[in-house]
Amino acid sequence: MKLSVIKIGGDIIDDEAMLTHFITGFSSLPGRKILVHGGGKVATRTAQSLGIKTVMKDGRRITTDKMIDVVTMTYAGLINKKIVGQLQSNSINAIGLTGVDGNLIQSDKRPVQNGIDYGWVGDPKKVNAELVRSFINSALTPVIAPLTHDIRGNLLNTNADTIASTLAIAMNKYFDVELNYCLQQGGVMEDVNQPDSLVKQLSYRAFDRGKKDGTISNGMIPKLDNAFEAAKKGVSKVRVMSHRSISQLEKSNFDEFTSIL
Amino acid sequence: MKLSVIKIGGDIIDDEAMLTHFITGFSSLPGRKILVHGGGKVATRTAQSLGIKTVMKDGRRITTDKMIDVVTMTYAGLINKKIVGQLQSNSINAIGLTGVDGNLIQSDKRPVQNGIDYGWVGDPKKVNAELVRSFINSALTPVIAPLTHDIRGNLLNTNADTIASTLAIAMNKYFDVELNYCLQQGGVMEDVNQPDSLVKQLSYRAFDRGKKDGTISNGMIPKLDNAFEAAKKGVSKVRVMSHRSISQLEKSNFDEFTSIL
Repeated sequence: MKLSVIKIGGDIIDDEAMLTHFITGFSSLPGRKILVHGGGKVATRTAQSLGIKTVMKDGRRITTDKMIDVVTMTYAGLINKKIVGQLQSNSINAIGLTGVDGNLIQSDKRPVQNGIDYGWVGDPKKVNAELVRSFINSALTPVIAPLTHDIRGNLLNTNADTIASTLAIAMNKYFDVELNYCLQQGGVMEDVNQPDSLVKQLSYRAFDRGKKDGTISNGMIPKLDNAFEAAKKGVSKVRVMSHRSISQLEKSNFDEFTSIL
Repeated sequence: MKLSVIKIGGDIIDDEAMLTHFITGFSSLPGRKILVHGGGKVATRTAQSLGIKTVMKDGRRITTDKMIDVVTMTYAGLINKKIVGQLQSNSINAIGLTGVDGNLIQSDKRPVQNGIDYGWVGDPKKVNAELVRSFINSALTPVIAPLTHDIRGNLLNTNADTIASTLAIAMNKYFDVELNYCLQQGGVMEDVNQPDSLVKQLSYRAFDRGKKDGTISNGMIPKLDNAFEAAKKGVSKVRVMSHRSISQLEKSNFDEFTSIL
């Protein structure tokens, strides 16, 4: 049985019209599904309003004591419940969750490495796949915020792309999982300024080459690392696509995405 | 089969040591249980940090567009996930939820009455008791934040005492429900300055008399209205007690609470 794991990022969440458009499309997708969301932009703005400074290192948020409270409020509270509310209004029985709820995703707190202390940041190590399965089989649609826990009472800020791939891999033993990373652009592009330069299929070798020659850079690299990890671990379909195309996903002639090989 | 519905308020949540002590006691309670929490004090402080003014009317929060975001962040995010994390560290498989998750509690937005517009405030009308039962039967412990929804995509700020009684009444068809309101003081007191003036049993007639002569006042009145509503609708044991006594609850000789008759 098919299960779609779909991930959306902070850009979409930050734009109310885009988010509503996405949620309408997501709601119309037939079958079982899980939505994983980010929210970094909103968290940064909330932190600013609270007078808390955001410090990033290699694109990752340094998560101090104050910052874990901000991301918990933003991801698990504001964003997650707004999405769940909109899905409910579309007759999708969504349930908003973080990794701490039902012990869904346990992580290891990231150790200090090369002198960098990311703070309350976690790298997933264990998924309660049985519970996720029982939710899905009860016709619930899990909406997952990017927070996990260390089982010692601490919440851990966790990359949403990693949560999506981790869930896809864990659920692959029960379902025929498809993992879709939705972003602003239409997929991996040869040249981000050329919409017709979409790479339809990306092999690991081409990814490696793209990293070296600079056509693949910045935030796309960790996202694709997660995508290739899922493909390597047996997730049959892994795609990078535009969030605008979500309602097209089930059409047989739809091919505006990058397939991760 | 017994189910304990336990409600804690903002005073406890605002004090880290008290909260930890309560959670330890709650964790040690045998059997099936649901925790309902408030968090008004933390919400007011968060609003203040964000430069948003809190306006109360008859002890109820006027919930503007900005304020519904603040309470969503605070209740569903910060407080709910902190409690769930601590319960997980005590080996309780807690799951944090609001009324929007799994369509758990639908409300009607409170209409403007006598010229008072409470804003995004909801009064519960429907509980998805079947889903709560399935969680409980899966050995999950629901931790409920005081937010519901109108099924049109709007979250609604909802009194936590009312959520506790509404859940207790709805679950009473499946379980032998006990409803416990935990507060700072030891129960309903003849005189709040006299710890030995605990009222061990409170009839509706005595409650009515207490309201008239002023011994029962302020926030205790809506709390007891909810408590009597649950008792009237068939919840066999309804108590008002100190959160400090939570670990005593199952002891046969424990009687330091007010029984609602």
